[in-house]
Amino acid sequence: MTKRKPPKQYSANREKPHKAHQKGGKKPAQNDTPVLFGIHAVSAALANPKRQLLNLMVTANVARDLGNELPSQADIKTAAEITKFLGDQAVHQGIAGTFSNLPEQKISQLDPSKGPILMLDQVTDPHNVGAIIRSAAVFGAQAIIVTRHNSPSNEGILAKSASGALEIMPIIAVGNLARAIEELKDMGYFIIGLDEGGTDIKSMTDHKPLCLVLGAEGAGLRRLTRENCDAIASLPAATRPNGQTFATLNVSNAAAVALYAITDV
Amino acid sequence: MTKRKPPKQYSANREKPHKAHQKGGKKPAQNDTPVLFGIHAVSAALANPKRQLLNLMVTANVARDLGNELPSQADIKTAAEITKFLGDQAVHQGIAGTFSNLPEQKISQLDPSKGPILMLDQVTDPHNVGAIIRSAAVFGAQAIIVTRHNSPSNEGILAKSASGALEIMPIIAVGNLARAIEELKDMGYFIIGLDEGGTDIKSMTDHKPLCLVLGAEGAGLRRLTRENCDAIASLPAATRPNGQTFATLNVSNAAAVALYAITDV
Repeated sequence: MTKRKPPKQYSANREKPHKAHQKGGKKPAQNDTPVLFGIHAVSAALANPKRQLLNLMVTANVARDLGNELPSQADIKTAAEITKFLGDQAVHQGIAGTFSNLPEQKISQLDPSKGPILMLDQVTDPHNVGAIIRSAAVFGAQAIIVTRHNSPSNEGILAKSASGALEIMPIIAVGNLARAIEELKDMGYFIIGLDEGGTDIKSMTDHKPLCLVLGAEGAGLRRLTRENCDAIASLPAATRPNGQTFATLNVSNAAAVALYAITDV
Repeated sequence: MTKRKPPKQYSANREKPHKAHQKGGKKPAQNDTPVLFGIHAVSAALANPKRQLLNLMVTANVARDLGNELPSQADIKTAAEITKFLGDQAVHQGIAGTFSNLPEQKISQLDPSKGPILMLDQVTDPHNVGAIIRSAAVFGAQAIIVTRHNSPSNEGILAKSASGALEIMPIIAVGNLARAIEELKDMGYFIIGLDEGGTDIKSMTDHKPLCLVLGAEGAGLRRLTRENCDAIASLPAATRPNGQTFATLNVSNAAAVALYAITDV
């Protein structure tokens, strides 16, 4: 295996595509040589035969903990050296690896008999997307469809938040979400948009197979996405002592509850 | 209202009590003059009659957006000046306020007829605790009980992640979780610990009133906490195509799903 130099400019900005976009920067949706850090994320990638390891930095302590699982090409570094490589916002737990990307997946490869699809309409926060990948793996989703632009790269904070689930949950990046919805409808999927003012999601579980669409916090579903859904569903909210409801869940929490509500796990 | 100087050393560390603890630092569980930032968190605090505003920094743009809701004592600052005050990890959206703390609440004030209690056993990540506060507000929890130590301060990232829910969800900090559990049992609560190897949580909804206990990610419930629970419940996990389950939800996602599962919203 050829050893490559890690990219020099792995800065915090690579974790925040929404910021790069705000500044007018043009950022590719995915990095060709994703950098993963954190024990769970890197261990899962090392165990994934679909990944090629390009470079691995570990502290002496982590190297000892990994024992026989430590790849021969690992470079022993201090925690400070790994921090210097990643940027000081990365809580790397003494391990960082540069890998090849996972093979691209296509919508046509999906099997309507095998679990619901989750679709994210420009959810940009990598912590949230990572947590959603975990929940999708737990509750039996088959794949996650994301927008090629305005989605975080499948690495770094996203991968760490996914805690290994990135290796088992197919992520399909598409250029046009409306077209992806049409393709899913042709395959027989019933498309449920999660948004305010919809029907209680529990009443929708008779429709199978399901695709569940979530928008970014605040922005919600984009108009065209919402219009293309077969139905709009909402999660219930309790009436507070003041007679009002507080109905704004964190997007990863909303995804987890919605997936739980529509699956029979 | 007296105007006080904001604390000078509002650094990123104040957002990460778990780090402060790792370094052996002694950190009070709560700050007497919590600093909130972000539009939703600060707006909700300004609208809360139980809060006293001590200091408010806003950008000219945010001041204009707030219009009549802008308090007279607001200081107009540049975004960079607010960042200098908060530390550069705070995504403040042009507004930061120093407030008095909310009044302390006691377990004896809880009403077993009014919604489940959530208990967090040293969940340290402020993003997660903030998201949990939101979910608790949405799904009708009555209050959240946290450990006085090893819990994030009710401000900053926690408050921003709670997106205003901190103002309506009572947080009760206790020194001894085992004693708090005993007190709840005496009031008639059935204590459910969420952990691996438990019964499906859906089978537990007949017990009312409920207290749901969650531990930190990775660490889980501490031994004594687990032993004091009336029952251990788990969330279901789907079997993946490889025949295995991936059963490690993000703690805020687990809390949201568990609350949804035990409430009749």
